[in-house]
Amino acid sequence: MKTERIGVSIENSLLKQFDKSISYRGYKNRSEAIRDLIREDLCGRQITNPKVQAIATVILVYDHHATKLMQQLTALQHSHLLKTISSIHIHLAKHECMEVVVLRGRVAEINNIAEKMLSLKGVKLGRINLIPV
Amino acid sequence: MKTERIGVSIENSLLKQFDKSISYRGYKNRSEAIRDLIREDLCGRQITNPKVQAIATVILVYDHHATKLMQQLTALQHSHLLKTISSIHIHLAKHECMEVVVLRGRVAEINNIAEKMLSLKGVKLGRINLIPV
Amino acid sequence: MKTERIGVSIENSLLKQFDKSISYRGYKNRSEAIRDLIREDLCGRQITNPKVQAIATVILVYDHHATKLMQQLTALQHSHLLKTISSIHIHLAKHECMEVVVLRGRVAEINNIAEKMLSLKGVKLGRINLIPV
Amino acid sequence: MKTERIGVSIENSLLKQFDKSISYRGYKNRSEAIRDLIREDLCGRQITNPKVQAIATVILVYDHHATKLMQQLTALQHSHLLKTISSIHIHLAKHECMEVVVLRGRVAEINNIAEKMLSLKGVKLGRINLIPV
Repeated sequence: MKTERIGVSIENSLLKQFDKSISYRGYKNRSEAIRDLIREDLCGRQITNPKVQAIATVILVYDHHATKLMQQLTALQHSHLLKTISSIHIHLAKHECMEVVVLRGRVAEINNIAEKMLSLKGVKLGRINLIPV
Repeated sequence: MKTERIGVSIENSLLKQFDKSISYRGYKNRSEAIRDLIREDLCGRQITNPKVQAIATVILVYDHHATKLMQQLTALQHSHLLKTISSIHIHLAKHECMEVVVLRGRVAEINNIAEKMLSLKGVKLGRINLIPV
Repeated sequence: MKTERIGVSIENSLLKQFDKSISYRGYKNRSEAIRDLIREDLCGRQITNPKVQAIATVILVYDHHATKLMQQLTALQHSHLLKTISSIHIHLAKHECMEVVVLRGRVAEINNIAEKMLSLKGVKLGRINLIPV
Repeated sequence: MKTERIGVSIENSLLKQFDKSISYRGYKNRSEAIRDLIREDLCGRQITNPKVQAIATVILVYDHHATKLMQQLTALQHSHLLKTISSIHIHLAKHECMEVVVLRGRVAEINNIAEKMLSLKGVKLGRINLIPV
């Protein structure tokens, strides 16, 4: 991985604020923080393209007593076996579980599977995160 | 406004993607695009503080036939006269209007006024944008 | 505009929280609040389609001393005359202005014009809001 | 869990669009879809409160060759042992890994730990998702 060094002009006052903010968050240097901003920006633009290959992290909060929910979730993952990479299960409260399912595929496809999960009866909250690969 | 020139190390492949993306969007140089990313990042963090001074742009889509809505909207703006700067009215369709109201004040206060507007009967869609000043 | 009355089952605890939240924001009744949630949801999904007709509200914060910026902004609006509906100008601070420009057209087109505005030298912050029509 | 049945008035045209949208996403009935919108709305408002108890799902994409990164990530999780619940590791590409770390605690605390992870050298992309519990 080859690296280039570029020059960036920036107003003193803005630089001061930025330095303060990134040091508070734990950054050791500005280059790292600026690279992260650039990657984040590109990533946000890429995933608006439905054909781009991406990883989806689907976060589900559900009531594990909901009839058939767990079977349906498992079935949904198995019917898209090539797109489901892995999942993690967390016990939140007496009746509540959280499951994080990682999917891989084109943005449109994995969004579609993720929305099917979110719409299952018993799923109370859901989040879809897409990261282009 | 004094300006400083800083050096940023960045992988070739990332730089290439970034250059392509910003030139497509119309940027003439990288410094400008990177400064914009930095400002956007700081701005997003600042407006989570309810005490920060900000400008809110409240966008409302409403049916101007809704009983009393226009009077209520005007009354709401007048009762917060010092915080309402200006507004613009756009005729969208036969029954639909759009109004952009600009408010100034602390984040918590102007959010509160903005949410009162959004909750009025007849307001169909609303957006609140906060920019710290 | 014909209206239908539908029944919605909802857990007591969730309903209680929702009622508290919407009354705090100023809603007079639940139907209004639920309709707003539905419109917001549909609206967010529609504007991911680049071909949908929409209204864009572009918010720009800029330094009015920036060379040629105001001419460029005006030129950009005039060169897309049919898509620019209106604009509002607000004096923020000694050197800072805010301009809210309202554009109408297909999502892809108005996004494109809006990004050209945001990338102009001197524009410090920008926001694009899309509302389908 | 006791359930109530409420009545909601809604315009025919809006209801039609909503029904189409939710059936496309896989919902079996409207109540389920409306409850999900309500939960999502409440959840979004609650996590703006830094004191609320929440679960954070931190998604990290990183280069596993980055010097010391994996040790630092592990150390960070161990130094906040009570807040780190679980993590999942996914092999994305030759040099790239994805890690999903689940944290539990107050919004402010877990945001703070999450941002420390995101700012580590070698972490290329990061996402923080907060869900109130």
